[in-house]
Amino acid sequence: MVNETQHSCSASSSSRSDGGSSSGSESSKENSRCSTPVLDADRHERLREKMRRRQEAGDKWFSLEFFPPRTANAAVNLISRFDRMGAGGPLFIDVTWHPAGDPGSDKETSSMIIANTAVNYCGLETILHMTCCNQTKDDITGHLQKAKRLGLKNIMALRGDPAGEEWEEEVDGFNYAVDLVKHIRNEFDDYFDICVAGYPKGHPEAETYEADLRHLKEKVFAGADFIITQLFFQPETFFKFMKDCQAIGITCPIIPGIFPIQGYHSLRQLVKLSKLEVPQEIKDVIEPIKDNDAAIRNYGVELAVSMCRELLDSGMVHGLHFFTLNREVATTEVLKRLGIWKEDPRRPLPWAVSAHPKRRVEDVRPIFWASRPKSYIYRTQEWDDFPNGRWGNSSSPAFGELKDYYLFYLKSKTPREELLKMWGEELTGEESVFEVFTCYITGEPNRNGYKVTCMPWNDDPLATETNLLKDQLEKVNRRGILTINSQPNINGKPSTDPIVGWGPSGGYVFQKAYLEFFTSSEIVTALLKVLKKYELRVNYHIVNVKGQNITNAPDLQPNAVTWGIFPGREIIQPTVVDPVSFLSWKDEAFALWIEQWAKLYEEESPSRMIIQYIHDNYYLVNLVDNDFPLENCLWQVVEDTFELLN
Amino acid sequence: MVNETQHSCSASSSSRSDGGSSSGSESSKENSRCSTPVLDADRHERLREKMRRRQEAGDKWFSLEFFPPRTANAAVNLISRFDRMGAGGPLFIDVTWHPAGDPGSDKETSSMIIANTAVNYCGLETILHMTCCNQTKDDITGHLQKAKRLGLKNIMALRGDPAGEEWEEEVDGFNYAVDLVKHIRNEFDDYFDICVAGYPKGHPEAETYEADLRHLKEKVFAGADFIITQLFFQPETFFKFMKDCQAIGITCPIIPGIFPIQGYHSLRQLVKLSKLEVPQEIKDVIEPIKDNDAAIRNYGVELAVSMCRELLDSGMVHGLHFFTLNREVATTEVLKRLGIWKEDPRRPLPWAVSAHPKRRVEDVRPIFWASRPKSYIYRTQEWDDFPNGRWGNSSSPAFGELKDYYLFYLKSKTPREELLKMWGEELTGEESVFEVFTCYITGEPNRNGYKVTCMPWNDDPLATETNLLKDQLEKVNRRGILTINSQPNINGKPSTDPIVGWGPSGGYVFQKAYLEFFTSSEIVTALLKVLKKYELRVNYHIVNVKGQNITNAPDLQPNAVTWGIFPGREIIQPTVVDPVSFLSWKDEAFALWIEQWAKLYEEESPSRMIIQYIHDNYYLVNLVDNDFPLENCLWQVVEDTFELLN
Repeated sequence: MVNETQHSCSASSSSRSDGGSSSGSESSKENSRCSTPVLDADRHERLREKMRRRQEAGDKWFSLEFFPPRTANAAVNLISRFDRMGAGGPLFIDVTWHPAGDPGSDKETSSMIIANTAVNYCGLETILHMTCCNQTKDDITGHLQKAKRLGLKNIMALRGDPAGEEWEEEVDGFNYAVDLVKHIRNEFDDYFDICVAGYPKGHPEAETYEADLRHLKEKVFAGADFIITQLFFQPETFFKFMKDCQAIGITCPIIPGIFPIQGYHSLRQLVKLSKLEVPQEIKDVIEPIKDNDAAIRNYGVELAVSMCRELLDSGMVHGLHFFTLNREVATTEVLKRLGIWKEDPRRPLPWAVSAHPKRRVEDVRPIFWASRPKSYIYRTQEWDDFPNGRWGNSSSPAFGELKDYYLFYLKSKTPREELLKMWGEELTGEESVFEVFTCYITGEPNRNGYKVTCMPWNDDPLATETNLLKDQLEKVNRRGILTINSQPNINGKPSTDPIVGWGPSGGYVFQKAYLEFFTSSEIVTALLKVLKKYELRVNYHIVNVKGQNITNAPDLQPNAVTWGIFPGREIIQPTVVDPVSFLSWKDEAFALWIEQWAKLYEEESPSRMIIQYIHDNYYLVNLVDNDFPLENCLWQVVEDTFELLN
Repeated sequence: MVNETQHSCSASSSSRSDGGSSSGSESSKENSRCSTPVLDADRHERLREKMRRRQEAGDKWFSLEFFPPRTANAAVNLISRFDRMGAGGPLFIDVTWHPAGDPGSDKETSSMIIANTAVNYCGLETILHMTCCNQTKDDITGHLQKAKRLGLKNIMALRGDPAGEEWEEEVDGFNYAVDLVKHIRNEFDDYFDICVAGYPKGHPEAETYEADLRHLKEKVFAGADFIITQLFFQPETFFKFMKDCQAIGITCPIIPGIFPIQGYHSLRQLVKLSKLEVPQEIKDVIEPIKDNDAAIRNYGVELAVSMCRELLDSGMVHGLHFFTLNREVATTEVLKRLGIWKEDPRRPLPWAVSAHPKRRVEDVRPIFWASRPKSYIYRTQEWDDFPNGRWGNSSSPAFGELKDYYLFYLKSKTPREELLKMWGEELTGEESVFEVFTCYITGEPNRNGYKVTCMPWNDDPLATETNLLKDQLEKVNRRGILTINSQPNINGKPSTDPIVGWGPSGGYVFQKAYLEFFTSSEIVTALLKVLKKYELRVNYHIVNVKGQNITNAPDLQPNAVTWGIFPGREIIQPTVVDPVSFLSWKDEAFALWIEQWAKLYEEESPSRMIIQYIHDNYYLVNLVDNDFPLENCLWQVVEDTFELLN
């Protein structure tokens, strides 16, 4: 880790050469300093640089290919898959371009929007495929501009399949992938990293294998940064292809495309599309078990593992590209058996970092959206710059409206019927609401035998960290302190701590205890009396749906509630309680009662009126215990409040 | 402390009214947020606001008047007095305007430069007096522009004494203080806070007491913010004056001027100048003891304390203004006996904050100048903005040149002969230099019986905090690790800790251990071997005078070494080890060997050549132990280094 650089800094005098005045040194400032405490060099590199750095470090990597799903529901599932498979540490994912599916549109299922979600909401380095045949120059430029605007930085340039049976060259049109590569470089200079396809057996339409190699060379020389190959069945196929490429002067990275066989039909379809031939020895194994999916998948995994091992052992291959067919199990198993699935992904920050280049300096967020990070990203997507180092410094107070609330990635993944089972087909009073909250905390089934695995404010089961507070949370929810967000205090745990750790190793992380909940005005009145005893120690913000706001926070300053100290770094404070953004969050938090819960019931029904009553009359409260080295006093505050009420 | 504000924030919707886009909301951003973590509201208020706030809080205050000294040496002493008396917590100091002493010039002893030093280097809120008679409009505007440029924000507008014996009114000239008040408001709008003089017995040249009151009202109505009175001997004089002022509609603060009698001659002189009469009962006491200075001072203190008590007890007086005559003892004693001298001044930050308005957001500095804060302020005076919240974000890498090195406030306060006694009339080798460093650390006299109370890098005796490290420092200095700056590690002490605390109460302060020293290349070679064992834990920068630089610090990022966590605040990290500014500091640190030490000796003398040798061949080293919760490992590093050498 020690990087003992001997740079002869007689250049130190250069920083003095402008004689006392600092006004003219803006550019040297830009050059000599990082504008952000860089915790993760990855975030600041483009894909081709990451690839080079990993190769130089002898660090093997993998990437994952997905296609856009047909339905909105399938899209929601795919995004959960991105989150889960993203946790294994792919260098990038790529999303194929489906010309028939209006790929550049704003539909939830378009290639463009799926790639956008992967980058912005899942924080994944993403390559968007793009085909060019049968399209106008303007169409293509429009797609590329849109991709750039959405934060996509990498394009896989493809020809695509011609419209008719017969291939006709268009004059001045885009006839080959190389035309698209040239167009991207002409119109967008070096902005995009460009990937092109390589065919280890030659493109099925190419005159000869050699002619196809020459086409590949043209694509690379036109500006492509690396090559991903079509699938193949034997390592030798790839080795020969790679040597042939090198022989004609192709020096960029060539990444083998790996297709773990997952089933008889998907194999047959792929083979048909790619016009490849399955080797006889594979056919011989598969044909007898063609109706046994599990057996075929096991065989596919074995085959892929052994081929990948051979590829990696050759020393010629540094990364493996997997055609996942949008499935999880086979690819994950291959990766785990190869030992390149990162079992324990280090978190660069306590929240998932977005991969949009505009957001690369972002390193502080309000705590309120902790369980709704996608909503936070959505509502701040129009920001021109993001807070870096401190919230107070550069944050914008303007959060996007809730008008696009129904965007699929902000909605619950769970169908209405299931939600009703979890949250109650019929509510009989505020107490039945308390019960729902309590069941969510305890993980116990509700009175109808269903577990409550999500809430309007939490799309996922309780976080591991929150589990630390489970007993206390249960107690208070039972009595009408309806908690939606909390964190324990932490007084200097190692940054490698499996539960609360984040950031580079060798550091220490800290937290102030935080508790956020809805509760009745009766409880608020008692709480305010109790809080007087805790003066400076506890900061509170209490607000109702109308915006009536009670606080003891000084001015409008944010309170840092999560921070980390690292070797050779400035202090990172990634989570704050910010009074200004709390008022934006309040709108969202109250709206969720109605949008996600009340609307499950008929208008005018008693159940709906109970939720409406809570929405109209309860307060949203947040509490911070500033005295992080002592035992969290917030439970005592709540205990005192209940005592006062009795 | 709890400020339970019930602001009805239906205004929360206003932050959303610009509909999702944040681009147009720059101004609302300005309004709604603090750009800096405000630790000390005082720093951001103008004097008249501070006065109002103190009055509303029922918090009594005092201020101190000084005059510019005649000699540069006296100026150096006066500045030390500013530092000492500033520690008692005056609301402001003021510096009188001496027309005969070229008051607006750049001389070390001019009114302008003394006031500049008080604001910028001592961090004191300062009022500069200014007289107007016998001066052109252009002269006066020039003075005011210069004052503004230097960061002065308050002017005491006076007429001054006419040149001749007879007073002649000039047409279109500045004849009265009111003309100056009007001119300031015309030319500088509301930039300056303006103070004017009030005469409880009437101005000696006024026709009547009533006419003088009317003149005072004119000054106030022309734009003066508050009044400081001429001295008086009996509280009743002030009470009558104040009531008469109020009766004619003067509502601004009126601050009584207090003159503790400090000696027979000074009293006589002041009485002559002010044309006041000393009451008979005072004369009766003083005359018999006129040759006993101590007795007169004791009486003066008694008299002042009893008068001040009466003033404060009346409820009409919130602040007291002291004419110090540039002396310390009498005024300090009166203030201590009144209980308004702040015995334990809270430090807003670990270093003394400058009062220049440009620097009001400054809250982080490199550690290197810790013992030379005036030099740091001097070398950064041309900066256009100052780092706020983080060093890496907005700091300028361009430090001013050392060309004005001989500016009096950067020079040693100690005369050459004394320095020679401390640092050796004759050096016999590097070991005699080691001895000087060791004696400075231990406080023991050197071989010639003189204590070493300052060093070229430290103008003052060892800081209390450094005392914590005394034993270890002594050991290493004896062996040629010549320490010039260090701090112990601190793992969360209360911000009210008398030694290491700073910032508002209720917080916790932290430090990483730091050690900075000069040492030989032989020791550096061994040290580098030892440091390999400490990898990530210890960051180092090692540089020689030529700028050869060895470091394991990642990139050019600063390392935060002092930080604090406070209730309801973002994290403050006021001290960093910054690799870029270290190279500017290096030039200064090496130059001090020659400028302050070598030059004490004849050219070509052996003593001078020893210092020159060290300057040319030694390295400047800094070490940070990143693992602040563990025991400081830097002593072990040094121990290991010595062991390796044996």
